[in-house]
Amino acid sequence: MTNSPPALRGVVVGLGVMGSLHARVLSSLPGVDLVAAVDPSEERRQDAAATYAHVRSHATLAEALAAHEVDFAAVAVPVEHLPTAAGEALDAGLHVLVEKPTAPTEEQALALAARAEERALVLCVGHVERFNPAVRLMKRKLDEGVVGRVIQMQARRLSPFPNRDAMKGVALDLATHDIDVMRYLTGSDVSRVYAETEQRLDGEREDMLCATMRFDDGTTGLLDVNWLTPTKVRQLSVTGEQGMLTVDYLTQELRFHEHPTRATRWDTLASLRGGGEGDMVRYALERREPLRVEWESFLDAVRDGGVAPVTARDGAAALSTARAIQRSGSTHEVVVPAYRSVAAG
Amino acid sequence: MTNSPPALRGVVVGLGVMGSLHARVLSSLPGVDLVAAVDPSEERRQDAAATYAHVRSHATLAEALAAHEVDFAAVAVPVEHLPTAAGEALDAGLHVLVEKPTAPTEEQALALAARAEERALVLCVGHVERFNPAVRLMKRKLDEGVVGRVIQMQARRLSPFPNRDAMKGVALDLATHDIDVMRYLTGSDVSRVYAETEQRLDGEREDMLCATMRFDDGTTGLLDVNWLTPTKVRQLSVTGEQGMLTVDYLTQELRFHEHPTRATRWDTLASLRGGGEGDMVRYALERREPLRVEWESFLDAVRDGGVAPVTARDGAAALSTARAIQRSGSTHEVVVPAYRSVAAG
Amino acid sequence: MTNSPPALRGVVVGLGVMGSLHARVLSSLPGVDLVAAVDPSEERRQDAAATYAHVRSHATLAEALAAHEVDFAAVAVPVEHLPTAAGEALDAGLHVLVEKPTAPTEEQALALAARAEERALVLCVGHVERFNPAVRLMKRKLDEGVVGRVIQMQARRLSPFPNRDAMKGVALDLATHDIDVMRYLTGSDVSRVYAETEQRLDGEREDMLCATMRFDDGTTGLLDVNWLTPTKVRQLSVTGEQGMLTVDYLTQELRFHEHPTRATRWDTLASLRGGGEGDMVRYALERREPLRVEWESFLDAVRDGGVAPVTARDGAAALSTARAIQRSGSTHEVVVPAYRSVAAG
Amino acid sequence: MTNSPPALRGVVVGLGVMGSLHARVLSSLPGVDLVAAVDPSEERRQDAAATYAHVRSHATLAEALAAHEVDFAAVAVPVEHLPTAAGEALDAGLHVLVEKPTAPTEEQALALAARAEERALVLCVGHVERFNPAVRLMKRKLDEGVVGRVIQMQARRLSPFPNRDAMKGVALDLATHDIDVMRYLTGSDVSRVYAETEQRLDGEREDMLCATMRFDDGTTGLLDVNWLTPTKVRQLSVTGEQGMLTVDYLTQELRFHEHPTRATRWDTLASLRGGGEGDMVRYALERREPLRVEWESFLDAVRDGGVAPVTARDGAAALSTARAIQRSGSTHEVVVPAYRSVAAG
Repeated sequence: MTNSPPALRGVVVGLGVMGSLHARVLSSLPGVDLVAAVDPSEERRQDAAATYAHVRSHATLAEALAAHEVDFAAVAVPVEHLPTAAGEALDAGLHVLVEKPTAPTEEQALALAARAEERALVLCVGHVERFNPAVRLMKRKLDEGVVGRVIQMQARRLSPFPNRDAMKGVALDLATHDIDVMRYLTGSDVSRVYAETEQRLDGEREDMLCATMRFDDGTTGLLDVNWLTPTKVRQLSVTGEQGMLTVDYLTQELRFHEHPTRATRWDTLASLRGGGEGDMVRYALERREPLRVEWESFLDAVRDGGVAPVTARDGAAALSTARAIQRSGSTHEVVVPAYRSVAAG
Repeated sequence: MTNSPPALRGVVVGLGVMGSLHARVLSSLPGVDLVAAVDPSEERRQDAAATYAHVRSHATLAEALAAHEVDFAAVAVPVEHLPTAAGEALDAGLHVLVEKPTAPTEEQALALAARAEERALVLCVGHVERFNPAVRLMKRKLDEGVVGRVIQMQARRLSPFPNRDAMKGVALDLATHDIDVMRYLTGSDVSRVYAETEQRLDGEREDMLCATMRFDDGTTGLLDVNWLTPTKVRQLSVTGEQGMLTVDYLTQELRFHEHPTRATRWDTLASLRGGGEGDMVRYALERREPLRVEWESFLDAVRDGGVAPVTARDGAAALSTARAIQRSGSTHEVVVPAYRSVAAG
Repeated sequence: MTNSPPALRGVVVGLGVMGSLHARVLSSLPGVDLVAAVDPSEERRQDAAATYAHVRSHATLAEALAAHEVDFAAVAVPVEHLPTAAGEALDAGLHVLVEKPTAPTEEQALALAARAEERALVLCVGHVERFNPAVRLMKRKLDEGVVGRVIQMQARRLSPFPNRDAMKGVALDLATHDIDVMRYLTGSDVSRVYAETEQRLDGEREDMLCATMRFDDGTTGLLDVNWLTPTKVRQLSVTGEQGMLTVDYLTQELRFHEHPTRATRWDTLASLRGGGEGDMVRYALERREPLRVEWESFLDAVRDGGVAPVTARDGAAALSTARAIQRSGSTHEVVVPAYRSVAAG
Repeated sequence: MTNSPPALRGVVVGLGVMGSLHARVLSSLPGVDLVAAVDPSEERRQDAAATYAHVRSHATLAEALAAHEVDFAAVAVPVEHLPTAAGEALDAGLHVLVEKPTAPTEEQALALAARAEERALVLCVGHVERFNPAVRLMKRKLDEGVVGRVIQMQARRLSPFPNRDAMKGVALDLATHDIDVMRYLTGSDVSRVYAETEQRLDGEREDMLCATMRFDDGTTGLLDVNWLTPTKVRQLSVTGEQGMLTVDYLTQELRFHEHPTRATRWDTLASLRGGGEGDMVRYALERREPLRVEWESFLDAVRDGGVAPVTARDGAAALSTARAIQRSGSTHEVVVPAYRSVAAG
């Protein structure tokens, strides 16, 4: 019989919507000991104490670090505090999973990356859609070449306004998901963006964006993102020379539409369905909660000394592209995301 | 260069809804010369003359036969006249495609079968759904064993009332389609039926039926048929030990649902989608107009001296089963279709 | 400021799949104090203790009753033990929510009903689908007459085999849901049933049934139920003279299809969609977990001294109809459910 | 009894795919006499003669005009010949329905408009989607304000490559449809466009485009158009402050999604469907063939001396916007469609 490794001890910093989800997943994962939770709000701390008997709550990270030995931190504080909180955790020698978009600016995100590298710590950004089993299988199918060379990717991320505090606009809050997934799927970087944006509801930022992106490998990306739409949609389609793959993020369904192999030889049906059709397959896949897979991947990297499954440079790239979309929406000009020159520098 | 065979010369008897469809298809088929059309209504004859320049119209079949050399007839007169009209055509030495349900009674249908056999003529019944490309592919997939042993078949044939004259109730007008398809798919005969029926609208006959059928091979058939439903539905599903095949007759789509191969390991999705899933495939197939395929199959049989693709005995079996459903609906008893004892006799 | 009433104190008897769900809901409901849980399995008791800090676990109900003051019990033991456990709880003066199908036999179910009546206790059967918000809204729409007189109801309850112990066949485990819902929607009783059933997988009982039911008010019910189908389906449609209502139990969607008001005047689309169409509406509704609504309704009845939202007579009727389906499946005869004569006696 | 007006006499110029459709519709419309058809191909002329007994075929329009008295022309020749053919017909005093995109250049399209105005002739451009009953009802619903102020419109027009000769790229062949519909729906003009385009298949022009458009009234338009996708999609959605309307051009379905009115109070469903929902309605509408409605509208304008339902200026605007999309795709710059300055001059 083998000994299992000692449990990794974690602290959740920030007990808002995402922090609470992290606490729930961490408290149910084998091999993990969630020892502490941090939030300035006493009410949230009491809620956490009522829900997780073995978790101690603290008002500050410093207080938590003074009271416990900890191996890693989940940092889920408001965007403007992400760099400070993540930096403090890294300085204390903790591996860190930081919520997207990593930081308010690319520079801050890359500074965190440098800090983690110096200390040889795992710093992972919480781009949770990358761990969606349907996205993972899509990546494998693309690598196997089922659609041939990729020409275009289209993402739709629509829903009614979420009624949360501190939403930062759909570019940062929503579009970063699909930007990251598209970078992951193509393995290519964003060379230019153009966007039309709109702000109708009260708030600091845009609540609708329509954007095109061009990747270095020639792929076009299309983003249709807002929180004005009455129904919730989370879809991605990838069109290649040999067919199309589509993902429904919510139901975790991956479909492959083969290029037409059989003609439709009846006008009545051809007018509605087109001149031909190939097989369509919805692949069987093991459905899992993406956030749980994210944590397993992070913890594997911590245990094995591997690289983060989503690096801080990935986080900076998605953030930078989202910022470019916002800028293009204001200036009505084509924008090269800032991370391209920083990265080149 | 080969000589093509001489064109087969045809007459359409009856220019109602189905007869007009036969005329349209026959006038566009290569290798066929539609020479005459028969209907007692002068208005319908004039319509046909205006539409098909080369087709002569006649008030009676006798008149048409006196005026033209003809090889085959499409008989699409009202149900009560089917035996007379089809019999007259057979007696004149014509191959015959007779509309379903062949005749008002099983005995008349079988008498027509005997008459065609004596004269070595092709007598085919117009069960057009059997020529639907999606049904044909389903048959092939079943024969290949993709779902293993078949346990159950379910057909739904729902629509608003069609507003045609002379409808004979949903058992004869609609359910005969699915009864014939189920006999075709299983290659097995109906051993008993039970039905609940209802007549709400004006008319001679039932406008709703819910029926179970049991086939000799142990398969259960379920029929949900009416013309009371606001939307048009034409669907068939076949469940076997290894999976399920479904056909949409209207869009000619055939789907295969494989038995679960991957578990769903997230309660949120499992509660909505079940505990696991296999691949789902919508097969590519060449879509064609079923009525055109029916005619090609009939004409092939005529040219090659083969058997009718749907025999008069098939027609009698579907008719007999529909009659059994009507009787069960009235008596609230389980009924053995009459063709079983006639056939055994 | 008003005083809220004292919390009702509850015990969960049986910690299998359903019992665990009851425990989860009860531990999160305001106005309820889940004080104890009962199961003969030590492992299950330990799991419960780990999950619910304030709940004491006991091996028997007697032990729990000796240790705590309790107002009500959730009884979720295997079917054969339901009468004993529910009876013990009633004798101790507890209000009882007993899992469907209430008991193995109609007589036992009705005996429980009598016992509860004598003691003026609320005895409710856990037919959870009746509390599905989409079913409740369907009931209201039917009562408002949106589809006019109801002609037919059809339920499909399909899924792969659930891999649980002690499944009692699809008639008891699955069909009882839809039988109860149909009685609730029509307010009418089942006058006869006929069924074809099949047992393919290992187990004591049928794993497929196709059944027709006739209700006293003339409505026909159709059941298509199995655990052989690769995909999970939970659907109900109700067809009336003026339109159709459909429920998806899983997504809690209620749709109304109005009878055709506009003709389709283009053959290409008419051949696919029928000759006309009315409005179709998916009604907005507040989605909630049905089990939670069930508990709220039960607890309201306890507090107000009202009748159980699903009575033991309802439970006996559904059970009795399911037994009639099993018998019809064996004898190939039309069966009148036994509760009709018992109730008449 | 009133006398019906004399039939309008028409000629179809060009017997390719679109011209043949015009001939079919015109030969079945009451109040119209299709007298002649023009095509340089003898084979096409023979086909037309075989199909339409009363229609004479000619190699040139001049020949047809010499032989017949004609009131109007359907001009459906290749794009580069559209101005010459339409101009010849106008000069001969005919009302003209010219196929989209009207002409190769905006200037030519506007010159045709001027020519028609001088002669007080109806010149209509064949933007057939504007006559789709679902689009017309969408326009009415928008004017009634059901979605409030419009924020965004999105069109998807995807299909496999159509395998026709002389396709001019997806901007001209496909996107012009949606550009015209969006101008029609908003009553507003295009102030700027940006596009990413791609040419993968052989041919002169782009086979994929992703474009944003901004209209004068602030609405954003998004175009996702290609002939690389395995399945045929023709969809339009319009999102406003109060809800969303969607059209499926193929099935002629119009749906309205009301803004959320009821909260979803169960996490399991909320995670999949969002935090709330309003009613969703699919409106009943009379489905008709759009091309037939287009002809009826054109002929009404001819008879009543009214304006064309789609003017040559509309045609020039759609063409100009499509050209701007092509230019943006080449230059990677934001482009103001040329018709804005021409129209201003």
